[in-house]
Amino acid sequence: MSRPLLMDINYTVFLRDEKLIIIDRRAFPRKVEELLCSECEQVAQAIERMAVQGAGDIAIAAAYGLYLAARELEAKCCFRIQASKCLEESYQRLINTRPTGHYLKSLLDKIMSSLDDRADPADQILSIIHQAIQKQQRRSELTGQWAEQLLQDGDTILTHCFPGPALLYMLKMASSNNKRVKVIACETRPYLQGARLTAPSVAALKIPVTLISDNMAAYCMAAGMLSKAFTAADRIALDGTVANKVGTFQLALAAQYHQLPFYILGYSGPDRRSRHAADIPIEIRDPREVLSYAGQMITGDGVQGFYPAFDLTPTELITAIITDRGIFQPDLIHEYWDLLY
Amino acid sequence: MSRPLLMDINYTVFLRDEKLIIIDRRAFPRKVEELLCSECEQVAQAIERMAVQGAGDIAIAAAYGLYLAARELEAKCCFRIQASKCLEESYQRLINTRPTGHYLKSLLDKIMSSLDDRADPADQILSIIHQAIQKQQRRSELTGQWAEQLLQDGDTILTHCFPGPALLYMLKMASSNNKRVKVIACETRPYLQGARLTAPSVAALKIPVTLISDNMAAYCMAAGMLSKAFTAADRIALDGTVANKVGTFQLALAAQYHQLPFYILGYSGPDRRSRHAADIPIEIRDPREVLSYAGQMITGDGVQGFYPAFDLTPTELITAIITDRGIFQPDLIHEYWDLLY
Repeated sequence: MSRPLLMDINYTVFLRDEKLIIIDRRAFPRKVEELLCSECEQVAQAIERMAVQGAGDIAIAAAYGLYLAARELEAKCCFRIQASKCLEESYQRLINTRPTGHYLKSLLDKIMSSLDDRADPADQILSIIHQAIQKQQRRSELTGQWAEQLLQDGDTILTHCFPGPALLYMLKMASSNNKRVKVIACETRPYLQGARLTAPSVAALKIPVTLISDNMAAYCMAAGMLSKAFTAADRIALDGTVANKVGTFQLALAAQYHQLPFYILGYSGPDRRSRHAADIPIEIRDPREVLSYAGQMITGDGVQGFYPAFDLTPTELITAIITDRGIFQPDLIHEYWDLLY
Repeated sequence: MSRPLLMDINYTVFLRDEKLIIIDRRAFPRKVEELLCSECEQVAQAIERMAVQGAGDIAIAAAYGLYLAARELEAKCCFRIQASKCLEESYQRLINTRPTGHYLKSLLDKIMSSLDDRADPADQILSIIHQAIQKQQRRSELTGQWAEQLLQDGDTILTHCFPGPALLYMLKMASSNNKRVKVIACETRPYLQGARLTAPSVAALKIPVTLISDNMAAYCMAAGMLSKAFTAADRIALDGTVANKVGTFQLALAAQYHQLPFYILGYSGPDRRSRHAADIPIEIRDPREVLSYAGQMITGDGVQGFYPAFDLTPTELITAIITDRGIFQPDLIHEYWDLLY
């Protein structure tokens, strides 16, 4: 069983010669293309333009952006004292790139609040990034482990967008436990993360995977082809509302109608600052991204576009939220923060 | 207000110098490209490959295919007596091209059963086609007229795939009646009929139209951007089950959750030979059509595809079915056949 490239962020977002390398997800799987960022602004643009994807990976890339900003400031010798003040502009630029996922802001906030003027700021940032990566990978593994307990031999699971490494850990462990599981992946327009990231990653695990257009999931449910659904979350509110890639809500509605469990891979649990749906900003992206595909217009003149990048799935449509600390009833997900490891 | 090309079949599927011209819908709206068919087999392939689209237009194109077959047989002088027997092979070829829509088979059955050995078969077919086109246009107009009564000033309606001329008649009449109506069109993967056919046709009527990916409709409903949904039907069973372009079912589920009316433009009513869902065959198309876009693979190796071209929306999710004979409660659509004009 080969290891999918997207299972390990150390191979997709990493430093080389003081430059940040991002394996450009927009070219994947056609090409494994390196995007080089030597300045913070380039990292911000790479995030905005979706060269990196997934709440966790975006956060790590942004943290590296802050690291590059720190190095830039060092080179100009205007640094060390009041490092966090000097980095404020870069911090703001980075957290505004993608407003919906909360992990980006959490990680950058953590960095900004823990910088200590007595040591080199860039070194401190790097050390926090390394810790964050380790923590994130452990979280993915634990989340995958809990999720695997929900799988049965013979299951076919539906997924949407790229739910990150926890999905791959879950499938890998199910395989090791001799559970034969199949996957149906929604292509996830307009960026096709399901087609480009999820499906090839599942195939790399030698697990049967079938791609469908986003509008075919309800048909597959009615035809008895699916037993469960798993997606990730870009942000979970304390009341159990789930913000995830647009389309998740529609799939959850179809799952409820067909009485199929709808699970959320919730990694590090809810955002403590989002009490309910209204606290989650939904990123509205450039409508041109909906009007064209691969650089080619798909419609005629005079047609507008609209591109909400995420949607909100209400608590009532979710069966359970799976985190690194265990499996939660969605309306009790706030208890995540009461649990000690 | 300019007239959308796709509002009138006389401009998109027609004879010229004894050849059938089909305005290739796959190139639309980028190009208005003529596809020439001089033999029945070419027409069958054009239908299979979706150069022509929509239940009514497919039926007319197929009937022209039968006409070309009749002319071919005439040229071989082996014709006139037992015309319908000689045409049997072509008839079978044509009805097998697209199994879900019932109008194709209805129209060819009508032709086959009414051929009279005392007259020229090809001429008879042509005369039936001309009648069918007239009838179909009148039906579209009447259906649009009934549907328009359901619109209110300020409505924004959702639509999926290309619901045919009735939608355009409805919008045109609403405009004439000073009802300001907007449209949100789902792009309709994998063939993008919503993006390529519906959105430009609505824009040609100078009615505001916004394109979304198929997975964004529930978001738009939750955001209060939509007031009603209208789709067509490729076949309606007597119990009110609606077969339409895959994705319709998911939209109807989302509409129900948001308590939005979900209307079907049902043109000529239910298929008398389909009592319920089980009587409607769902066409499963080549999975490669899901795995690629514009000739380019969108996923990696080892990934399968699945492409059901239609889905079945249960009666309970439909608010009303609008036909040329009036507006029906979906569970009473069988009464369509009891009504006299």
